[in-house]
Amino acid sequence: MHILCSDLEGVFVPEIWINVAHKTGIEALKLTTRDISDYDVLMKKRLSIMAEHNLKLSDIQAVIKQMEPLEGAFEFLKWIRERYQIIIVSDTFVEFAGPLMEKLNWPTLFCNSLTVAQDGMINGYNLRQNDGKRKTTAALKSLNFRVVAFGDSYNDISMLKEADAAFLFRPPENVTDEFPEIPWTETYDGLKTFIKEATAE
Amino acid sequence: MHILCSDLEGVFVPEIWINVAHKTGIEALKLTTRDISDYDVLMKKRLSIMAEHNLKLSDIQAVIKQMEPLEGAFEFLKWIRERYQIIIVSDTFVEFAGPLMEKLNWPTLFCNSLTVAQDGMINGYNLRQNDGKRKTTAALKSLNFRVVAFGDSYNDISMLKEADAAFLFRPPENVTDEFPEIPWTETYDGLKTFIKEATAE
Repeated sequence: MHILCSDLEGVFVPEIWINVAHKTGIEALKLTTRDISDYDVLMKKRLSIMAEHNLKLSDIQAVIKQMEPLEGAFEFLKWIRERYQIIIVSDTFVEFAGPLMEKLNWPTLFCNSLTVAQDGMINGYNLRQNDGKRKTTAALKSLNFRVVAFGDSYNDISMLKEADAAFLFRPPENVTDEFPEIPWTETYDGLKTFIKEATAE
Repeated sequence: MHILCSDLEGVFVPEIWINVAHKTGIEALKLTTRDISDYDVLMKKRLSIMAEHNLKLSDIQAVIKQMEPLEGAFEFLKWIRERYQIIIVSDTFVEFAGPLMEKLNWPTLFCNSLTVAQDGMINGYNLRQNDGKRKTTAALKSLNFRVVAFGDSYNDISMLKEADAAFLFRPPENVTDEFPEIPWTETYDGLKTFIKEATAE
């Protein structure tokens, strides 16, 4: 029996931090792991920027509430859920993802969480585990699922390598250059074709 | 971070085989593991009864389509999904569960599958693994989730014992007698209270 395992940002919804940076006008929140490769350093930087601007969790959530899933994502995910099981695995935080998950009809999401103070300020974050995408894939394989995985970038590669079948969706060129063995597509219809082929008995 | 792990039949939807027996008028399909304790023998018996009555998968699905989730189950599951992640783990078959999953808004379901012949007759079944409920719970724990599990009967006990917190929903008296250490409730509100207590940080 097959199960799908997918990234969230870039696949079903836009990049959350980039949108938050854009909508709050705080340029420094645009920093990503491309700018600061150590995730812990990056997150601490983001939290200190938020504290500096007196931004509470509720402020960020208000921005995220204005975001919409990527065009066609809702229908694509509906198509998936009528045919397969899917676990979405993301580095984001459950407190951020909520409004977008609601718009996607509450698919199952494995991600991280924030620590929020009494006054609503975010004062820390909790990574559930390192390399969570790959470990989730491995755990599903241990349950005798054949895992079909897809994501959009570098931080998905360990998951894609662990999976029984794997695809990239709208990947940057450096990723397709580095991993030419992973099929990629720019469209949800392309993913549907890949998924149907990978799950054909 | 917490995750919920739950049984399906008796918790969110009625017992599927009992309803199929009732609606097809085939009494012999009412047999459960209480009557034939070996699941493989029981399933082969069910499949031979279906063949005898020339019942195809589509006939069973037509019956299941008339079934509804238990009263209040939709709202309870919606309440859960707005607050937590949940994996429903069941001994049923994905081909049977579909119509009921649609009515529950497609929660994630880990279960088994059927082998269906060209003519639509069910000619076999595939157990993904033995003791799948417990193994799913253990796999989620390996992903650093704290698992809160609930189910209604004997076949849930190994899952409940493996979980970090566990409850019974509308259990038969012999189960509560045998496992008095597991809290139980007759209502979804009771489960909500248990879940809130178990997930309070």
